[in-house]
Amino acid sequence: MKVLAYAAHEAGAELLPYEYDAGPLGRLEVDVRVTHCGVCHTDLGMIDDEFGYASFPVVAGHEAVGVVEAVGDDVDPDALPIGSRVGIGAIAGSCFGCEWCLRGRHQFCPQRDDTVLRGHRGAFAQHVRASDWRHAYRIPDALSSAEAAPLLCAGTTVFGQLLRYDVRPTDRVAIVGVGGLGHVAIQFYAAWGCTVTAISSSRSKEDDARGFGAAAVIASSENGALDAHRGEFDFILSTVSADLPWDDYLGLLAPGGTLCLVGVPQKPFTVGPMALLPQAKALVGGVPGSVDDTRRMLAFAAAHDVRPVIETFPVADSGAALDRVRTGSARYRAVLEM
Amino acid sequence: MKVLAYAAHEAGAELLPYEYDAGPLGRLEVDVRVTHCGVCHTDLGMIDDEFGYASFPVVAGHEAVGVVEAVGDDVDPDALPIGSRVGIGAIAGSCFGCEWCLRGRHQFCPQRDDTVLRGHRGAFAQHVRASDWRHAYRIPDALSSAEAAPLLCAGTTVFGQLLRYDVRPTDRVAIVGVGGLGHVAIQFYAAWGCTVTAISSSRSKEDDARGFGAAAVIASSENGALDAHRGEFDFILSTVSADLPWDDYLGLLAPGGTLCLVGVPQKPFTVGPMALLPQAKALVGGVPGSVDDTRRMLAFAAAHDVRPVIETFPVADSGAALDRVRTGSARYRAVLEM
Repeated sequence: MKVLAYAAHEAGAELLPYEYDAGPLGRLEVDVRVTHCGVCHTDLGMIDDEFGYASFPVVAGHEAVGVVEAVGDDVDPDALPIGSRVGIGAIAGSCFGCEWCLRGRHQFCPQRDDTVLRGHRGAFAQHVRASDWRHAYRIPDALSSAEAAPLLCAGTTVFGQLLRYDVRPTDRVAIVGVGGLGHVAIQFYAAWGCTVTAISSSRSKEDDARGFGAAAVIASSENGALDAHRGEFDFILSTVSADLPWDDYLGLLAPGGTLCLVGVPQKPFTVGPMALLPQAKALVGGVPGSVDDTRRMLAFAAAHDVRPVIETFPVADSGAALDRVRTGSARYRAVLEM
Repeated sequence: MKVLAYAAHEAGAELLPYEYDAGPLGRLEVDVRVTHCGVCHTDLGMIDDEFGYASFPVVAGHEAVGVVEAVGDDVDPDALPIGSRVGIGAIAGSCFGCEWCLRGRHQFCPQRDDTVLRGHRGAFAQHVRASDWRHAYRIPDALSSAEAAPLLCAGTTVFGQLLRYDVRPTDRVAIVGVGGLGHVAIQFYAAWGCTVTAISSSRSKEDDARGFGAAAVIASSENGALDAHRGEFDFILSTVSADLPWDDYLGLLAPGGTLCLVGVPQKPFTVGPMALLPQAKALVGGVPGSVDDTRRMLAFAAAHDVRPVIETFPVADSGAALDRVRTGSARYRAVLEM
């Protein structure tokens, strides 16, 4: 199949129409006609070659929603009917045979197909292909396609930690950053039953954060703001890529608490042993959810009215969308309409 | 009660007889005539004033075993009969009323009495007092007093993590350091059913490590030794105070694995984000066990024949015992006989 995509031909370039041949459809594969695709920081990272291993032309986009157009011979048509609405996230396929797939943790599969990171063509395109039908997710009727798109990466990334780290509704939670991930996280964690505090550098997003479900807002740039909340939280989810004062953030945790990072800091962490040891605190890395995590996330979002706040752009204006993400000014997630 | 103790009167000084008045016995308190007390690095830290807040004269010692000599009016004599054999570890008392005590995590009680760290007199003495009878542990008959002593701190510290982090017998575990804590950890984790790899700087303790139950030994100073085991372990317990190459040790973990520190490094950790994030790894601080952890540990040690390997010294030779610990040459735990 010929696919019309929108590719960056060199680092930082605008997206231009680019046609490639996806080849014949494999037995477990699914072709999806993309209607919407969210723009994630990782897409920018590939387009701008921040990570240093992009292979141009780059077709980014891994928060796709669209319609099933064709399925391989071994795909159960009842599981994924032609014409049904599906999403594809950061992982387009995995082996379903390794230790990790068999344990339900497909995100660790050594042979997984990352939708944009390792050569697979992403969803800034008229079509995208899932390497395995089990990585294409039926979208609940209650979710619009445009709003569902950011859930496929941002949503599952923040939601997956609720399951992974067994966060309970009685836990006192803080979400660091009110942005693309953070604004969805506040909604999910509040709907989960947790009392959520949003931590933002200033108070400029305070009203929004409360609207998303935050019970309190800490402006970290205010003098002594963090000190006033020492020992208060059982679980902190950091969605920012800033290099935070890690010891101060570990200090916000109650004994036995966990600081979970889903934003990727720029520099190595430096952590004092005394910030971690005497109170058995944990510093952990969060990764996007598994297949089951993502299915549960979509059902939970539909049931609890969790909705990303989006700005939509026709794909012809992709440059404007990318710039909103580059400058951190999207309120709160940019979505391309194909 | 007048107590004859053995105190350091200034930083690094030898222990000299020192008498103090313990005052009247409180309603929940227990006086124990000490027969044996292990020597832990933390004792040296106080005697040598490594932490900078010792208040001299220092009476260290928090791995005590002895005999109940008197109990307060509110102590159930059936729970702790006069003449029964008990141990006292790093925590001599806690409030039993705060959030943490009520959650069974007495080690986080803000009002806990550390046996040696905060003014309480330790067990390098003829007598030691538990501030609350629930922090005095009956010693199972199967354990000798001399061997039981190191279990009260070293034992519960390494054992507590099995419970805290839900380590399973199917987990692939590495124990870093074959010393006072490590040699007990290897025994506990092997008895727990885990396949245990010991990581030591050289091969000088390889035979011992295998004798304790290690299935394999990695000599970390050998060229490429760590690289050969990348991604191999679900849980790594570091018992050393050395500043390890943290990214390399995180690299030894399988996806989702945990590096748990019970040894206190000298310097702040530096950890690259990519060592932690893409595979959802965890860096966590381990603390000594709770009351329940310690009770379970003693029962488990008795049932599974976990025995610290000790060198005993009469208290008159405490200088020799302390030097064995100072120089890291004890094989494997020094115990004073009172």
